[in-house]
This record gives sequence, structure tokens and C-alpha cells, in this order.
Amino acid sequence: MENTSLPSPTHQNPTTFLSDLKPSFSKIKHAMVEFGMRIKKIGEDDPRRIAHSFKVASAITLVSMVYYLQPVYNGMGDAGMWAILTVVVVFEYTAGATLSKSMNRGFATLVAGAIGIGAESFASLFGQTVKPVVIACLVFFIVAAATFSRFFPNIKRRYDYGILIFILTFALVSVSGCRVEKLIALAHQRASTIVFGGATCIIISLCVCPVWAGEDLHNLIALNLEKLASFLEGFGREYYKIPEGDKSFLEAYKSVLNSKATEESLANFAWWEVGHGKFRFRHPWKQYLKIGVLTRQCAYHVEALNGYLNGKQEASSEFQKIVQEPYTKTSLEAGKALKELASSMKLMIYPSTPYIHMENCKKAVDELNTALQASRVEKWDIVETIPFIATISILVDILKCVETICEAMEELAKLAHFKKLKDKSDKKRHFIQHDGAVKPVDDGNNEEWVAINVDTKQ
Amino acid sequence: MENTSLPSPTHQNPTTFLSDLKPSFSKIKHAMVEFGMRIKKIGEDDPRRIAHSFKVASAITLVSMVYYLQPVYNGMGDAGMWAILTVVVVFEYTAGATLSKSMNRGFATLVAGAIGIGAESFASLFGQTVKPVVIACLVFFIVAAATFSRFFPNIKRRYDYGILIFILTFALVSVSGCRVEKLIALAHQRASTIVFGGATCIIISLCVCPVWAGEDLHNLIALNLEKLASFLEGFGREYYKIPEGDKSFLEAYKSVLNSKATEESLANFAWWEVGHGKFRFRHPWKQYLKIGVLTRQCAYHVEALNGYLNGKQEASSEFQKIVQEPYTKTSLEAGKALKELASSMKLMIYPSTPYIHMENCKKAVDELNTALQASRVEKWDIVETIPFIATISILVDILKCVETICEAMEELAKLAHFKKLKDKSDKKRHFIQHDGAVKPVDDGNNEEWVAINVDTKQ
Repeated sequence: MENTSLPSPTHQNPTTFLSDLKPSFSKIKHAMVEFGMRIKKIGEDDPRRIAHSFKVASAITLVSMVYYLQPVYNGMGDAGMWAILTVVVVFEYTAGATLSKSMNRGFATLVAGAIGIGAESFASLFGQTVKPVVIACLVFFIVAAATFSRFFPNIKRRYDYGILIFILTFALVSVSGCRVEKLIALAHQRASTIVFGGATCIIISLCVCPVWAGEDLHNLIALNLEKLASFLEGFGREYYKIPEGDKSFLEAYKSVLNSKATEESLANFAWWEVGHGKFRFRHPWKQYLKIGVLTRQCAYHVEALNGYLNGKQEASSEFQKIVQEPYTKTSLEAGKALKELASSMKLMIYPSTPYIHMENCKKAVDELNTALQASRVEKWDIVETIPFIATISILVDILKCVETICEAMEELAKLAHFKKLKDKSDKKRHFIQHDGAVKPVDDGNNEEWVAINVDTKQ
Repeated sequence: MENTSLPSPTHQNPTTFLSDLKPSFSKIKHAMVEFGMRIKKIGEDDPRRIAHSFKVASAITLVSMVYYLQPVYNGMGDAGMWAILTVVVVFEYTAGATLSKSMNRGFATLVAGAIGIGAESFASLFGQTVKPVVIACLVFFIVAAATFSRFFPNIKRRYDYGILIFILTFALVSVSGCRVEKLIALAHQRASTIVFGGATCIIISLCVCPVWAGEDLHNLIALNLEKLASFLEGFGREYYKIPEGDKSFLEAYKSVLNSKATEESLANFAWWEVGHGKFRFRHPWKQYLKIGVLTRQCAYHVEALNGYLNGKQEASSEFQKIVQEPYTKTSLEAGKALKELASSMKLMIYPSTPYIHMENCKKAVDELNTALQASRVEKWDIVETIPFIATISILVDILKCVETICEAMEELAKLAHFKKLKDKSDKKRHFIQHDGAVKPVDDGNNEEWVAINVDTKQ
């Protein structure tokens, strides 16, 4: 009797036990499904990530097997290790980053090896007793200087990894304590494995579904312009609460605010890339950064504008209704100008119609001003009108930003030799939306497009 | 004759040659002086950089010398190389980054070593002919999966380096082709050198002039608040062109706009740090990031406001003069509130007086509204007044931002157990500027400060 009563506080009949397990099974199942969904999402967001994973795996498997199967080394020698190590640390997501790291690693190893051998020989002159002291001093001061040099912004940007490898190789070579002849053989072997590993990475990275940092930068800048454009195109309607379908544009622009770090690292990697697709070697990536800065400047104003959408509770006042048409037009045309810039960047053709949109914008602002002047000011409740007037002022600031972006784009078009639309079919395709009423005229010599109104019958 | 005439096109008499050399000497001298100035500037900007360089040099020299002088290995063996390699790649600028990398390296090596030995033993079951194929398949799929896992944001943030080392060690161990007994000896030797290298880094990084990522984050957030505060304090005077000395505050805030990446990486490293100074282990660093986001939000509005300083050409209109007092007061008090928050963060005490400043702000806005209502609206030139009205609206938005920052700071004060000012001398020191007219009252239980006006004679 006592035996059966003992386990009672924790006792559960089998049915209860199983039904207790069920939720934990379903929890595990749920967690696994969720995990699967996350993997799927990451893969879908950018399918090149899956390709990248297999590229890295191929490179490492290839290099491992070469050294594993090589009959010269019994099993895997030191050399194979260096090749694998090189592949693991050098193979980056973008081709530019891989190139940058390979080059840095290669050159730094060479330079540091040479200086290391020099340091070792120099220390040997002092005899066996003093030698360790001399080596220690040399290592100490050269490593300190190299570490400090990593704080120079220019060095950090492009050669940070190189300096790291320099420190590593220099320390290894100078304290290796081998005689010089043996050292040179070692250096030769090590350099050849690094070259083999680096070359494998570069070939696979550049030839199999390459991810170009330059192309990514190009697309990112165009996408950022598009996001701002969508916001501006929709803003007027949104402010006047005109029902519309998709509202994602209200949030999309926010990523532009913090894109600086991504843009800069992509531009750094793009600097190392060979010509690819539409981009030559030494494409003016710096100008992209300039456009990026101006785009962000514009995004700050858009962020200020967005605050008024959330804050606005009551229906538009009578005063606001008076200026509705020029108001929505201003924002719409600014958006169109940006969209035009984005598409001309994507297609790599000279921007042309933004100037037409900018003209329309300015006209709309003039209309807005006229409407404001004409409205009977004394009737307003000034305090209630403040936010609305602020949005007008911010819109005008945005127009200024769009103008500077236009100018920067034109400079980019010159520097990067964007295509000029010459033949008629090109123009037609490009300006189809204007029904032939507006068409750009190329004077042949001048690099800017001049937009004038011409009769379609002409 | 011919001989003397031959060199004539490139011939120069010695005097010309020397005078030609002079400018290039002075050029070299100039370049060297400039280089020296740049070194000095980088060192002066943050003297901890110099300390860091010497710390790294000491660690590498120490580890090198231990293996160089060790009589067990003749010269330097494999083991020494791994110790040096560990120090070079693991020693980072901040203590948190060093800890993060050491821990990642240590654990990843252990896990990967174990899995690698497992993979090698598993492959051996299939016999010598099939073994390479099995190993290649295992390496391929495990490396692909590990590489893909680096795209998960959470893994990337904290364990990116660990995954890299996992891939490296796993590949090295599984293709090493040694028998298991030998492998374990090798693994033991390698693990011990990594531990030795990592421990050297951690000890030097944490004990000699440590650079704490957490402290840097703390200071950065406080500094950013201060920069915005300085702008707001000066903005009103600047808008009304009241002459003032230092104008650096007009540019200083710009760095706040792009501090996201720095803040996030510091917070990631701070997560690894042990308690130090005023900060416990597991200090609420996430809340700092939240305040950082709100500060940046505020900075976007400040950026919009700054545009009106540059754009303003003409002297203030009569209308602007009417509201000058409440206008400058609003901006001044908002600045004071932020400055108070910054200093309470620095001192790690509960924020108190910002509420007083916020009340003053709101009063000033009310005054501003009253003045606007009272002014004879019909007299204005509405179009000319637009920019000025916009600044009022933006100021009101900034006040809202400051309020949310206040709330976030209060949450931080709770989470991080900021000091409450209890004894009188503390309060006196803290509220000296209020001449005893305003003093915060602590009801003992409630964690918020309530500010009321009390008679000083009480």
C-alpha cells in the first residue's frame, strides 16, 4: 500500500504522460518548421547566398582533396593546411572582397617574408646570445608600427587585411630560427600553396555565378532612388487620404537612411573588381557614393515629411483643399523625376526627362504659392495650419535635393560614359509616356539633353 | 665637338641640377612633415590607439619568444606558429571584440575538432578506396551548411568568426588523414597553443589600459545627445543672427546621423564584456541602442532644421521678431533637456530636471502659439513666411522626439539601476543652477521624480 502511494505526487498515468509529451513534440515540430521557414526566407531574399555556400564548399573540398590525394605528401602536410586556411579566410561573398583579400594576402606574405628573412639575417650578425634580443626588439617595433598604421583611414579601407597578414608572416618568419636556405625553401612552398588557394578562390568566385560588389552598389543606389520616388509619388495622395492600394512605400524609404556603411563597403570592394557586364575596370564608383550621400540627404527630409502623415488625424481643412492640386502635383512630379533618374541609372543611359519633371515641379510650386497668396489668409487658424505649411516647405527642400541629385547623376553619366539615346526607336521606347509631345533634342556636340516642346507633326 | 654637343638637350650645369633637386628635397621634407602630423593627429584623437599598438606588439613578442626560446622544440615548431596566428587574428581594439574572437575561436576549434575526428572515423569504416569520397562529401555538405548559416543575422552578429574557424578546423582535421591516436595528440597540442595565445590576448587586452566597447558605447550615446543639445541651444540665437562665438555646434551633430553601424558593433562587443567600472556584466546595452535610434530620429529633424539656417538670407521680418522670445526659448529649453539627459547618463544618475525643461518647452510653445494667433495674420506675406513656420513645426516635432528620448532614458535608468540622488548635498550639486526654486521630490517608492515648486524657506 505504501509503495503505491509513494510516487503519487509525481505520478502520472501513461495517458497523461503521453498527452504531456504531445505539446512538447508539437513544440519541437513547430520550432523546426519555423527554422525551415527562416532558411527558406534567407535563401529567397537573395538566392545567390545558396550559390555562395556551394561555391565555398566546392573550393574547400577541391583544395582539401588535392592535398589529401597528393602522393608526394604522405597524408596532409603543412602545405595543404596553408592552402585550406587561405581558402577559408579569403573566400568572401562578393568577387571584389575575395579579390581584395587574395591580393592583400599574397602581397603581404611576399613583403613580410622578405623583411622577415632580412630581420633574421640581421639578427644573426650579433651572435647566438644577443640574437633573440635583437629579434624580439625588431618584432616588437615593427609589429607596433604596423598595428598603428591600421588606424589610418586610407590604409584601413583597403589594406587592413594585408597589414594583418604582414604582421603574422613577419612574426612567423623572423622567429622561425631556421637557416636562410631552409627558410627560402619553406617560403617557396608556403607562397605556392597560398597562390594555389587564392587562385582557386578567385577562379570560382569570378567564374561561377559571380556576385559583383560593383553591380550590387549600382543596383542599391538605383533602388534607393526608387524608394524615395515611390514615397514622393504617393505622399500627396496619402496626405489627402485618397484611398490607395499598396502602402509599403511609406516604410520602404527608411532603409535609405542607414545605407551609408553598406554603400561604402561595396564601393571599397568594387574598387578591386575587374570589368564585368556593363562596368569597366575603374568605373567611377566614387561618384556613386556621392549620389548616395545626396540620396540620404533627401531621405532625411522625406523622414521629416513622413512624420506629418502619422501625426495628421483630422480631415483636410478647407484651406488645404484650395491648394490640393498643385500640392499633390509637386510631390508627384518630384517622385517622377527621381524615378526617371533611377531608371536611367539602371539602363545606364543619359538622364533626360527629369528636367521636364523638375520644370513641372517648379510650375506646381509657383501655382501653390499663387493659391496661398490668393487664399484669404485672415480666415485661417494659424496654429492648426502650421504642420501643413511645414510640409510645403519640406517639399520645396526636397525639390532642391532632387536637383542636386540630377546634377550628380549627369556627372556620373559623363564619367561612366552612359549611353546617349541616338536613334528614334530608342527615344520612342523611352518617352512613350509623353505621347510625343515632349522630346529631347540632341545637338550632337553638347553632352546635355535639351528638352523642348515640338509639334508631333513635325 | 660632337661629344660635347650630344648631351646638350638633356644637359644641365651643376648649379641648375642642384637647384632642381632642391624643390624635390623640400617636397620630400614637406611630405614627411605632413606624414608626421597625420601620425600625431591619429594618436592625439585617441591616445589609446598608441597603447593598443604596443599591447599587440607585446603580446606577439611574448608569444614568439616563448616558442623561440623553448628548448623542447628545436627552433620553432608547428605549435608556436598556431599561438602566434591566434594572437595576430584575435587581438582586437576593444576588450569585447578580443573576448568575442577568443571565445569563438576556442569553442569553434573544440567543436570542429570533435566533429572532424568523428567524420574521419566514420569515413574509415568504408575502407581505404571509398574513404576519400565519403570525406569529400562530408566536407562539402558540412562546409556548405556552415557557410549558409553565416547569413542568419543572429549568427552573423555574434558567431561569424566562430563559424569561420569551425569550417577551417573541421576541414583540416577531417582531411588530415592521421590515425585517431595521433590526431588526438595533435588536437591536444593545437588546442593548448590556441588557449595559450588566446589567454595572452585576453589578459593583456583586459589588464593593460583596457578599451571597453561598453564604455565607448555609453560615452558615444551621451556625446550624441550632447551634440544635438548644443545645436538646439544655439539654434534660436543663430536663426535670429545673434552674434555668438563658437559655431562648431552647427556641424557637430552631423556625425549622429551615421552612427548606427558604430553603435551596433560596439553593443555586440559589449555583450561579451565582463563587468567593468560602472557597468555590470549584462548591462542593458540593448536599451542604449534604443536610445541611439531615437537620438538619430531626432537628428533627422535637426538636419531638416539646419537647412533653414543655411537658406536664410534676409534679416528677420517683423513677424519673426514678434515671436522671437518664445521661439528661441523653445529651442533653448529642448537643448537643455537633452543636455540634462546626456549628463545624467554620463553620471549614471536618474534624470530629473529634463521634465522641468520639457514643461518650460511646452509653455514656450503655448506662448508661441498665442503670439502667432495674436499677430495680425493678414499683414504677412505668406510665401515668405513659409520657411519660418516650417521651423516652428519642426521644433515641435523635435520636442516630441526629446520626450521619447526622456522615456527611454528613464527605462534605462531603471534597467541599469542608475543612482537616485538621495542626500541633500547631491541634490544641491545637481540643481545648483535652479537656485533652490525648483527641486525634485522623491516619494521613496515611486521610481519617477516628481518636480514641484517649493518655497526655499520650507
